[in-house]
Amino acid sequence: MKILKSHKTFGGFTQFWSHNSESTKTEMKFSTYIPSGEIKGCLLWLSGLTCTEENFIMKAGAQKYLAETGLMVICPDTSPRGLNLPNEHVSYDFGSGASFYVDALTEGYKDYYQMYSYIVDEICSIIQQKFQQNNISISGHSMGGHGALMIGLKNPAKFISISAFAPIVNPIQCDLGIKNFTGYLGKDQSLWTQYDACELLKAGNKHTNTILIHQGLADESLERSLLTPHFERASQEYGQKAEIKYVEGYDHGYYFVSTFVEEHIKFHKQFLGDN
Amino acid sequence: MKILKSHKTFGGFTQFWSHNSESTKTEMKFSTYIPSGEIKGCLLWLSGLTCTEENFIMKAGAQKYLAETGLMVICPDTSPRGLNLPNEHVSYDFGSGASFYVDALTEGYKDYYQMYSYIVDEICSIIQQKFQQNNISISGHSMGGHGALMIGLKNPAKFISISAFAPIVNPIQCDLGIKNFTGYLGKDQSLWTQYDACELLKAGNKHTNTILIHQGLADESLERSLLTPHFERASQEYGQKAEIKYVEGYDHGYYFVSTFVEEHIKFHKQFLGDN
Repeated sequence: MKILKSHKTFGGFTQFWSHNSESTKTEMKFSTYIPSGEIKGCLLWLSGLTCTEENFIMKAGAQKYLAETGLMVICPDTSPRGLNLPNEHVSYDFGSGASFYVDALTEGYKDYYQMYSYIVDEICSIIQQKFQQNNISISGHSMGGHGALMIGLKNPAKFISISAFAPIVNPIQCDLGIKNFTGYLGKDQSLWTQYDACELLKAGNKHTNTILIHQGLADESLERSLLTPHFERASQEYGQKAEIKYVEGYDHGYYFVSTFVEEHIKFHKQFLGDN
Repeated sequence: MKILKSHKTFGGFTQFWSHNSESTKTEMKFSTYIPSGEIKGCLLWLSGLTCTEENFIMKAGAQKYLAETGLMVICPDTSPRGLNLPNEHVSYDFGSGASFYVDALTEGYKDYYQMYSYIVDEICSIIQQKFQQNNISISGHSMGGHGALMIGLKNPAKFISISAFAPIVNPIQCDLGIKNFTGYLGKDQSLWTQYDACELLKAGNKHTNTILIHQGLADESLERSLLTPHFERASQEYGQKAEIKYVEGYDHGYYFVSTFVEEHIKFHKQFLGDN
């Protein structure tokens, strides 16, 4: 693991790293912010379509609140890079920059796009071994919000708390999710539900702590791809505590994320700080 | 003047605009953040080399503090665009994205690179007429810090307060400044001093209010191009009140800017709020 860049920020350090991943068999990059002083826990952040390890750490303005709460953050890239798989670089919403955080099963992708394992096993091991943090929460934006809900609900013992910004909550019900799940998992839809937050609730997965979600009401993807009300209904039906905040006038981008990131960091801090 | 994009942020709006400039004879872009509620004044922000109207508004995390203080910000682009002048697109540190905020005199550039007039006349008119703000302060980063110091010292009645992040304080004494002043103003160095903050102090220009500067001590450009101690000495010698804060470990980029932007916004608010 090597450090590529390091920038002092709010007394701590914003850093960029690369390492050779066993899961993806590629060089993978991630960014971190490490506050000064004692670290109280780690937030694992998953970014959305087209993003890299840089978007959240550069645009969300999170460092101030991480410094104040003593939390670190780790932001992995959103897919393997440097490959040339079938259709991998054809559209912005499939392949490169669009892993959907699943372990792929389809020809070509199955050898590299093992992003679920990369996050759950490899990144979590890095948090524990390299950064010495055992208290981990998970959050993300859009496709990364899907990743946070799905990974958090599948691994409730591993992640102390879950939140999301404008997440894709029910990928098997929207064209974007169907495109990706077909591409990575194949046509057998019975293999898709294990990676769908609403389906996971239906199957009995649950997290002890409340899940926090912010969703902008001026978000153009809300009705087409995000389907936030599906998660609201599934939470009620299957007994998952969830606080879903619909916010008037906010769209899908990082100006929206930056507005509410303080609330999410403080939300996670209340759980991470107790451990 | 037309609005290109609008994003709700911390209750107000981050917006991107374009208009036809009389000074540059090109279409120019700028960004703004307008907080909700009564606006107490306007901060005019000048960005550094290679930047556009987007860098500060996207990376500095300023909106939170602007919302809290009731200030708006306007961030112009750093040069005319869409031209093809001699050497304009050859290097990152001259021409496009590198106007140095002067009114050019050299062949080709004199017809378009009238960025001093663009900022002082056109942008200030937009602030006053379009946004109805008469209380204006000025700040900037690197080349834009040079712009803020230079424009503020030349127009003390127009700008209520001045601050800068890692500014180029004495361009006629560094290779980067000499390259640009030669390119825009020609070889007659007597024409250069009117655009050099240290030379302006020497010539008797002064601002009533303290000038605030932050300078990172891990900034690789400090000794080569920024020359911050020159401004410190000139301020003392010519009686300009200045608070120059050298900060250990910080480099030249936006992670540094984001760390201290709250302090600068609150600094300007104390002057803007009084008027």
